[in-house]
Amino acid sequence: MTVSTAAMLVIGDEILSGRTPDSNGNYVARQLATLGIDLREIRVVGDSEAEIVAALNALRTRYDFVFTTGGIGPTHDDITADAVAKAFGVGIGYHPEAYALLEARYPKGEFNDMRKRMARVPDGGTLIKNNASVAPGFQIGNVFVMAGVPMVMRAMMEEVLTRLPRGVAVTSITVSVELAEGTIAQGLADIQKAYPQTAIGSYPWYRDGRFGAQLVARSRDADAAEAAAQAIEAMITQLGATPERVNSA
Amino acid sequence: MTVSTAAMLVIGDEILSGRTPDSNGNYVARQLATLGIDLREIRVVGDSEAEIVAALNALRTRYDFVFTTGGIGPTHDDITADAVAKAFGVGIGYHPEAYALLEARYPKGEFNDMRKRMARVPDGGTLIKNNASVAPGFQIGNVFVMAGVPMVMRAMMEEVLTRLPRGVAVTSITVSVELAEGTIAQGLADIQKAYPQTAIGSYPWYRDGRFGAQLVARSRDADAAEAAAQAIEAMITQLGATPERVNSA
Repeated sequence: MTVSTAAMLVIGDEILSGRTPDSNGNYVARQLATLGIDLREIRVVGDSEAEIVAALNALRTRYDFVFTTGGIGPTHDDITADAVAKAFGVGIGYHPEAYALLEARYPKGEFNDMRKRMARVPDGGTLIKNNASVAPGFQIGNVFVMAGVPMVMRAMMEEVLTRLPRGVAVTSITVSVELAEGTIAQGLADIQKAYPQTAIGSYPWYRDGRFGAQLVARSRDADAAEAAAQAIEAMITQLGATPERVNSA
Repeated sequence: MTVSTAAMLVIGDEILSGRTPDSNGNYVARQLATLGIDLREIRVVGDSEAEIVAALNALRTRYDFVFTTGGIGPTHDDITADAVAKAFGVGIGYHPEAYALLEARYPKGEFNDMRKRMARVPDGGTLIKNNASVAPGFQIGNVFVMAGVPMVMRAMMEEVLTRLPRGVAVTSITVSVELAEGTIAQGLADIQKAYPQTAIGSYPWYRDGRFGAQLVARSRDADAAEAAAQAIEAMITQLGATPERVNSA
């Protein structure tokens, strides 16, 4: 089975300064999961052309797809389009369709030079139009360049999803138990060894003075995930506790 | 002025699958900001030794400090300590103090081999003890290895903060305005040019059908940030709108 891989590049000083918590990474991760595309890496860099170029070139040569968010607005700190052009070694200029869309959006005289910046697309790029903003994102090669504002990014992602291949999604089964991780760790390690096709993760939780762990079996082979989950449930029962299947959360 | 730099390495399949939104990156970013340390990059990788080693070596050689979260519990998928040892090319074994702390924590017979994994520290590492969990994190060289559970990570970060240098924190002044970014972009670009010591960012907002932007002036020179903020306010007033200083949010 060929599995497509992806990386995400989050661009923006405001993430690194702590001013803004990034939520786009999680959103893109969940969207890719539904398509069966493996998100392998996320990087966050600041509004620095050199940093964007270096990160983008590292990621686009290594993974099948790269998704960027941030830095495509009209202000001086929006430098993503230029950085992407530089990374690809291509020119950049007004994309005729983007220019026309934006020009039609603004009253006479208000389509100023800074707003025109939003029509700049690296040569060879295609637009990512969306329902939330007249300013488009763009795709060039295997790189999808999207807005940082979550509402706009999500609208762009809808269009991006139509351009991505559908693979086999990972089946994820979560079993929750009120036992300490240390109590179940050996049994879990044995089950991982017995079910190498399934990735088994353990995530401790603490709530209202109670504690336990969510045990997650993940595999593209749904039967393998189910078999591993049942083995986990049997192990828990044998320890005298009660396993509970829950939705991943 | 010498400014310390830092990177963060978030470790965990659950972040990349979208199951868990990462909140540790934002927390560490805000803590470092208070110390005046520049967080320059965040990377998220999965529970893969090769990926952790490669990312850690890239980051620790480039930045003054690296902070990792995730993968230090008792279960088989907790592989961070081993990966860190490999990245540094050192051995790994039970740290006597960590071992003693953990041994004292569990009733006789419950300090099993999997729990003992939490006492494994790369040779030369020092413990990061904390109030939330008896299992410590550790520091080796310029790398601080912390838990993924936010409550525990935050407790470890309290100890880590005592080991970091104090620099000059960035002064950040936020001016909010109900104008479209495209309307203020040229004035803002001119101000950025006139105040090169200050980084000026523009972050659009949408709320209840209204829209505008938060304009942020950031500098280690508080006077320079203030001067740039006043220039922004004057520009907004000249455009017939009302600038409003707000707390960064």
